[in-house]
Amino acid sequence: MRATLMYRSGDVRVEEVPDPTIQEPTDAILRVTHACVCGSDLHPYHDLEETPGGRRMGHEAIGVVEQVGDDVTTLKVGDTVIVPFSWSDNTCAFCRDGITTSCVHGGFFDGAPSATQAEKLRVPQADGTAVVVPEGTDESFMPSLLTLSDVYLTGYHAASQGGVEAGQTVAVIGDGAVGLSAVLAAAQMGAGTIILMGRHESRTDLGRQFGATHVVAARGEEGIAEVMEITGGEGAHVVLEAVGHMPAYEQAYGIVRPGGVISRVGVPQYEDAAVGFASLFGKNATLTGGPATIRAYLEAALPQVLDGTIDPGRVFDRELPLDDIAEAYRLMDSREALKVLIRP
Amino acid sequence: MRATLMYRSGDVRVEEVPDPTIQEPTDAILRVTHACVCGSDLHPYHDLEETPGGRRMGHEAIGVVEQVGDDVTTLKVGDTVIVPFSWSDNTCAFCRDGITTSCVHGGFFDGAPSATQAEKLRVPQADGTAVVVPEGTDESFMPSLLTLSDVYLTGYHAASQGGVEAGQTVAVIGDGAVGLSAVLAAAQMGAGTIILMGRHESRTDLGRQFGATHVVAARGEEGIAEVMEITGGEGAHVVLEAVGHMPAYEQAYGIVRPGGVISRVGVPQYEDAAVGFASLFGKNATLTGGPATIRAYLEAALPQVLDGTIDPGRVFDRELPLDDIAEAYRLMDSREALKVLIRP
Repeated sequence: MRATLMYRSGDVRVEEVPDPTIQEPTDAILRVTHACVCGSDLHPYHDLEETPGGRRMGHEAIGVVEQVGDDVTTLKVGDTVIVPFSWSDNTCAFCRDGITTSCVHGGFFDGAPSATQAEKLRVPQADGTAVVVPEGTDESFMPSLLTLSDVYLTGYHAASQGGVEAGQTVAVIGDGAVGLSAVLAAAQMGAGTIILMGRHESRTDLGRQFGATHVVAARGEEGIAEVMEITGGEGAHVVLEAVGHMPAYEQAYGIVRPGGVISRVGVPQYEDAAVGFASLFGKNATLTGGPATIRAYLEAALPQVLDGTIDPGRVFDRELPLDDIAEAYRLMDSREALKVLIRP
Repeated sequence: MRATLMYRSGDVRVEEVPDPTIQEPTDAILRVTHACVCGSDLHPYHDLEETPGGRRMGHEAIGVVEQVGDDVTTLKVGDTVIVPFSWSDNTCAFCRDGITTSCVHGGFFDGAPSATQAEKLRVPQADGTAVVVPEGTDESFMPSLLTLSDVYLTGYHAASQGGVEAGQTVAVIGDGAVGLSAVLAAAQMGAGTIILMGRHESRTDLGRQFGATHVVAARGEEGIAEVMEITGGEGAHVVLEAVGHMPAYEQAYGIVRPGGVISRVGVPQYEDAAVGFASLFGKNATLTGGPATIRAYLEAALPQVLDGTIDPGRVFDRELPLDDIAEAYRLMDSREALKVLIRP
């Protein structure tokens, strides 16, 4: 089959690789029908060192079940399923808590031997991981359903961990697809004021359609000052940080209200950061977030897509065949595209 | 009047200073009847630089109202009142949120011109700050009521911000008076397992009486391993960090369960710390806490002391007159005393 490999920063290729096979009785094999490129795929696109043999790419997918292991009971051949970016048994102590990304039998497709930007995919812990799309679902829903694999539910995770309540003021840092998804999720939760911090007008326009009431293009001290002005000097109850770089974190503690929450879903590209009296502690600010626990939200979000409550698939502004995926990376890296849907 | 001044690390003196006077119509003047030395007073005791004129010390007090400003309506001369370590108007947006330590008219007695280790005290924002003790309250309740000025409610703040729920596993780092108070608060909230990390047996014994089910004397990697063993490899739902030094923070993220909460009330003696994928983010751990919002809890805690539900005053193991306060600092610094009550 064909699969996407990255050999070093900027070097993305589609090559023939062996088909995946059932390795554990809890596995399933899918034919991938919809995949995409994630903002987090751009991190290795910027800094991956020479990797002999290449790194398999992709962690978002919808596919059709082609084969199941002997222990798989909830999926059957022919089912169309959504696959979160991490697999999980959905039965261990942490999964029962809803922290499926910490499953004791879990793992991440990112960097795994079988990843989603490919014609086929091996799904470990298939019963606990994949969620079946109702038979007969119209193709037009597929982009939005694909966002339940990562991007929309990552934005949702930010808002959920942040504890967004009706009427609150929420600031979203980052106008990428996750940031826009966070806007949509905060709006779903009834946030009264949603301030989107981003400077790409086509993106912030979609953010307004998703529910942003204010857009702040300025960054740093100037951006902080604008948010403080909008909030009457009080700051945001909840800050959703959807970037992962230090300036975004610094902006977050600059605009969070005393007693407020910073919820991060941008994978931090730093380990140490300010958390002392001057940043978080003095104003009793809370720092939360982490890898989105997609599987814990997926079953509730699926009917919201199908009944039209949410249309998060609007973050896809391009579509390309798998063979052109290098172009998809380039378009997203240059910000010519917000998010590219891939048809393997 | 006599007041406590610190001139540099280790140099604590009681000296004659001018009596405090009403400066704003919202002020009250108290005759201090009960004060004490706080673990946080030991930070300047260790590292205060030469301070000409001295720094006024103390931020915990019970006292009798001697004089009130023209705008004070809820206090009258002769009332016995409890004063939190920070003053607040109790009406601003942040006070209404319960974040009284961020009051727009607030401040901290620590380092203020009038502080509590003295015969008299000026209380700014007296209506919003001081809470009246019912007339006729027996002297035997005073030590426990004094802990509502800071130490017990600081432990309570840790547990409250940590969101301790009935049946959960809570780890408390630090066997000082705040750590022991956090044990008592977690027990009040119904924690199922309370692991106290501390190595001073007389203190951990009191911790057991306050509700600790396990005591771990080991620190660092060994301490983390012991907590993980007690929790069946899962970690603690909530970690209450009552120390403020980096090793305590490192221990906290080492033992917190995926999806769990670290709640800090030990004033951080660091600004930067690990918060990236390897520490907090990867396991969706939450970091919360800050200066305790005493005033928001005080009115509910007062009847709990008077009806005997809690007896947090047991953290006082010594009592000294104001003139001997230098000895109180020495006893606490050398860990010969857990917490010293002062009679001005």
